[in-house]
Order: sequence, then C-alpha cells, then structure tokens
Amino acid sequence: MNRIRVQTSENRHCSKITTMSTAGKVIKCKAAIAWEPCKPLSVEEIEVAPPKAHEVRIKIISSGICGSDNSALFQIIQTKFPVILGHEAIGVVESIGEGVTKVKPGDKVIPLFVPQCGCCRSCKTANCNLCEKFEFGFSTQSGLMADGTSRFTCKGKPIYHYASTSTFTEYTVVSDICVSKVDAKAPVEVCLIGCGFATGYGAAVNTAHVTKGSTCAVFGLGGVGFSAIVGCKDAGASRIIGVGTHKEKYPKAIQLGATECINPKDYDKPIHEVICEMTNGGVDFAIECAGRTETMMTALMCTYASNGVAVLLGVASPTATLPLNPGLLLTGRTLKGSIFGGRIFELKINVNI
Amino acid sequence: MNRIRVQTSENRHCSKITTMSTAGKVIKCKAAIAWEPCKPLSVEEIEVAPPKAHEVRIKIISSGICGSDNSALFQIIQTKFPVILGHEAIGVVESIGEGVTKVKPGDKVIPLFVPQCGCCRSCKTANCNLCEKFEFGFSTQSGLMADGTSRFTCKGKPIYHYASTSTFTEYTVVSDICVSKVDAKAPVEVCLIGCGFATGYGAAVNTAHVTKGSTCAVFGLGGVGFSAIVGCKDAGASRIIGVGTHKEKYPKAIQLGATECINPKDYDKPIHEVICEMTNGGVDFAIECAGRTETMMTALMCTYASNGVAVLLGVASPTATLPLNPGLLLTGRTLKGSIFGGRIFELKINVNI
Repeated sequence: MNRIRVQTSENRHCSKITTMSTAGKVIKCKAAIAWEPCKPLSVEEIEVAPPKAHEVRIKIISSGICGSDNSALFQIIQTKFPVILGHEAIGVVESIGEGVTKVKPGDKVIPLFVPQCGCCRSCKTANCNLCEKFEFGFSTQSGLMADGTSRFTCKGKPIYHYASTSTFTEYTVVSDICVSKVDAKAPVEVCLIGCGFATGYGAAVNTAHVTKGSTCAVFGLGGVGFSAIVGCKDAGASRIIGVGTHKEKYPKAIQLGATECINPKDYDKPIHEVICEMTNGGVDFAIECAGRTETMMTALMCTYASNGVAVLLGVASPTATLPLNPGLLLTGRTLKGSIFGGRIFELKINVNI
Repeated sequence: MNRIRVQTSENRHCSKITTMSTAGKVIKCKAAIAWEPCKPLSVEEIEVAPPKAHEVRIKIISSGICGSDNSALFQIIQTKFPVILGHEAIGVVESIGEGVTKVKPGDKVIPLFVPQCGCCRSCKTANCNLCEKFEFGFSTQSGLMADGTSRFTCKGKPIYHYASTSTFTEYTVVSDICVSKVDAKAPVEVCLIGCGFATGYGAAVNTAHVTKGSTCAVFGLGGVGFSAIVGCKDAGASRIIGVGTHKEKYPKAIQLGATECINPKDYDKPIHEVICEMTNGGVDFAIECAGRTETMMTALMCTYASNGVAVLLGVASPTATLPLNPGLLLTGRTLKGSIFGGRIFELKINVNI
C-alpha cells in the first residue's frame, strides 16, 4: 500500500498547457506498459488517439501508485493485458471530443475510476457512489472505451485501458463521465484525491459516519489508512488507534491525527482482544485499509458488540471469503463497504482546493 | 417460527391478582419442563421460591412460543437442562424482593430476555440494545439467577432458568433489570412484544432504518417476519416483498402490509436474482428472519449494490459461517445485526398500549 507520486520535471510547475497544436491528432508520448501479468512495467513510446464523442484527452501531471494497480498487475483484480495501469492522477485537459460540455481544454482535472453518469439509480441516490456504468461494459472490465476500442497503441498493438483511467502515461483518454474538474491552482499532490485520500477519508466521514468523541481503529498505515485517520480526526473522534506492523510509519500517523499506534506483533494475544481491553469493550468504528480478510475479521471483532461499525475498503480477491459467524453481527454490529470514499465527487461534493 | 400463544382459562380475563397471600412463600404451580434436549416438554408441578433482593416474581398470563425456544431445546442455543424454556410473555407482578423499586405487586409486566441494567456502556448509548449484563454471568448462559442459584425446583431437583425469563410456567422469577412495566389494560397478545414483534418491527424501524418510499424484502413469513413487514409499512416503504415457501401465509402477510409475496420454489434461478430483476437492481432493505445462513446471503445479495442494507436477526448456530466475499460489501452494501429490535424497551422506548 505504498503510495508514490510519479511526476515528470516538465510537468512540475504546469498550470496550463498549450493544447491547440495537438487537438485532433494522434499524440506520441511515453507510458509505462504492463505487457503481461506479474512482470515489471516497461516505459515505451505509445500513440494516443484523439478523443471520440464524449471523451476527454488528458495530459497527466502526476499519478500516484496504488495497491490496486499492484492487484491488477498480479491479477487479484481482473485485468486484460497488455495494459496501461494507474488510476490516481491529476492532469490538464488537452482536447475534448464531440458533445463534451463539462470540461474544456486547459481545465485541471482528476480522472475518476468510478464514473459519475448522473443518470442511473446510484448517481441519483444520495448515499450511493457506485455508478451503474462502472459495472456494465465500461473499461474497468472490458479494458476498452465505450465504443469497444482502445485509444492506445504501442509498437502497432492496441493496449488496454485500466479502471476507466490509465494514468501511467503522459496522455490518456477517458470518458467524460470519468473526469472531474478541480481548481486551476490545485497542486500536483491532489492526484491523491483520485483514489487514496478520497477512499480513506470518505470511508471515515461518509461511510462509517464517525461521530464526535468516538473511538476508532484504523488498520493499515499506508496512504489510505493515513487518509482514514485524517477523516476520523476531522469527524471529531477522541481516540484514534493506528494498527500496523511498520513502526516507521507511526510518527506520520501520529502527525496526521492518530492518538496512538500499536503493532499486533508486540502482543501474545489477538489484536482485537487487545483493542477491546484498551477501549472498554471495543472501538466505536474500525476501518480496514489493508484488503486482507484476516484483518477484516479483526476489524469487526475489535468493535463494541452492541453498536460497533466496521468499514471495509480494501480490494480482496474475488474468491476470498470472510468466515463470518452471524452472531458477531446479531449483537448489534454493522459491517459495511466503501468504494472511493462513499460519495466524493461531482454530483456529490464539489472539489475546491 | 410458528408462534403460538399459551394461555390458561384462569388467566383469560385477569387484570389484577391477589398477591398478599403468596408473597414471601414458595408457590406451587404448573410448568412445562424440558428435562433433556430434543425431547418433548413435560407439564409438571414445580415449586417457585420467593424473589430475593432485586428480583421479581411474576404470575404469567400468556406466553408465546418462539423459534429460539426450539433452538434451545435442540441445543442450537447453548442451554443447561433440566430447564423451563419460554421468553415471550406478559404477566402480573406477584411479589418483589428487597430493593426493587421499578415495579410493584399488581403491575402488568413483560419479562425481558435482554436486560436493561441502565448503567453499562450499552444501556447508556442511544443506538445499543445489548446490555452488558446479558453476557456476563446472567442466566442466559448460567441458567441461574445472579446469586448462582435457581428459584425453581421440581421433584426435589433444581430446574435451570432460561434466557433470564423462563415463561413456560404459571409463575417465574426474574431480575428487576429483566422486567418492563406495561399499561394495565395491555391485552394478553402483548406477550409478543417480549420477543417476536419487537424483534421484527425493531429490525425494520430501529436497525435497518427503512425509509419512506423504499423497497424492502422480508425473508421468512412467521411471527418475526410479519412484524418486520409491519415495521417496513409503518416506516413508509412503498414496496414490501414477502419471501417464503409457505403460501398459506401470504394472505396474512398481505393483510399486514406486504405488497406481494414470492416463493423461491417457483423460480428456476436464485431468488436474489429474481428480486434484483423485480426492483431495478435490488431492494433498498432486506430483513432476514429465518436464521439460516443461506437466506442471510440471499438477503444481502438481493439488496442494491450501491447502498443496500441487509439486517440479520435470526439466531444461527454458533459454528455457522457466512461465506461472505468482501466484494459484496465493497460496492456500498451494509450488513448488520439486530437483537430484540435494536432498541425497544425501558430506557429506550416507553411501552404504552
């Protein structure tokens, strides 16, 4: 779950780029190609076709590397190869296809791996965040744009899109329902809103609905876990326990709002028992950011039996199962999932940096 | 999950009974004893000792028979034998022990299988219903009163208490934190508030928080399922789908508020797929009242992926596990449990009939 910002020196101070010269033309640029599963990415020259109707071509300024990219590379998330991975970026609109009205060339934008079509049941419902276009025929599964083709080629071969975004490239093409305009002054780090920050922060604020004065446990101290800690703090939690095995991350967790950090390896009993003892029976909220089924069960069991809420946001294998005894819930616990922070973008919350 | 009201003709029109003659004395009366697991109950004459400090002796007017009694008899719920089962009753206080202040002789009351001590973290928290006395040393597990003894004897042998209540008897003794006063005019049917009605209705209203205009599915058309239907209707649901295999129960379900009933046996595909097709992607709320893990999974899967809420309230085996892929939740679903309706009695809601 290490999160590394990828950035070219050329883009470092970019706030607006010249777009007229490339609009309507194929752009040649560099991209990191995953030719096959489980192998290192290869930086290659690719061709990026112009955007078709309701598509947007974006010059990427910076992109994070998320655990989900790794999951795709190692086929925990189903993905077609060869592919351009990456889904956590910020960029500038280079050109737009016919019918695009929500952004224009020069706009600073974040690509969205979860679309916001604005028309489906999910988009029209306040507490939903999984646009139905995510599931049906979109590039997350097909690796292709809506018309069934790719905008990328490399060495004469079509390259698949990934997660509706494909951001490990200097230029990408996304659907206009997969892009959100942000403030022109947004710094490069805002790429993290494109996945990690939104996912962790939103899980605490939008999904768990962490309450003022509550006790929280956050499992996994990577970028998502750190963001969940910030969310818990912003929601007014009085005690935030960071749980992780990498002690070198504790100072950052404390800086961001954790009141203490614990390492399961330091105890000779299950960590959920330790946390229950620390918190008079269990935390009010637990957020699991590691995507491991064992940790998911621990997160549930460390919550107070009578009203504890555990939120899962990590992507586990499609064949993974939680060995969940219903009695753990019967007492009053809640187990819920959160995708991309529950409700973050566009129709939901305007991003103003 | 059949629910039968047990009532003696003697008690039929009882609104107040003479109590002074028996206070402080052992009462001889009839009770249904479960001498050993999996065997028919036997109606015997028993002795009921006077209540000790902070205990209440109750003359039972009527008692329901709940599936959980059956689960105890067949050892799905851990229980000590010989035992007097039953936990869903209404009665009149016959006498009180020292220190009892919340009820007095002659009060009409409902015994509570989930205590309300009023002092623990759970009792002091608005959205909790599992008093910590439920878990620690109470008769639910020990089969004994707080002092470690029983108030029942039969043929010279001590008989265990069950679920802090033991209502398959003409007289029982409960802790004063396991009793709730109800209106003197409450009819005998109010015994159902002691478990089935509260459990089903509360699961819809207090736990699921069914919303106005929503779609609901209720699995299991027994007393609890019927009560869940009433809860969904009271909460303003616009569509309530009753799911059950006993078609003879459909008219009652419709009378209580179900807008339609379906039988999984009538379809050649999984019933969650049928329900998703019927409801444009899934119901908003599903309530599982059967206590079967297969039905629990079906209840979750028939909810809308983006924000569906499934509530489990049936008591499954302690060794049962739900084969839950976390991806079912990641999309935005919620899975939660509900005990005794989430929050029903005493400190939570005053019962006024």
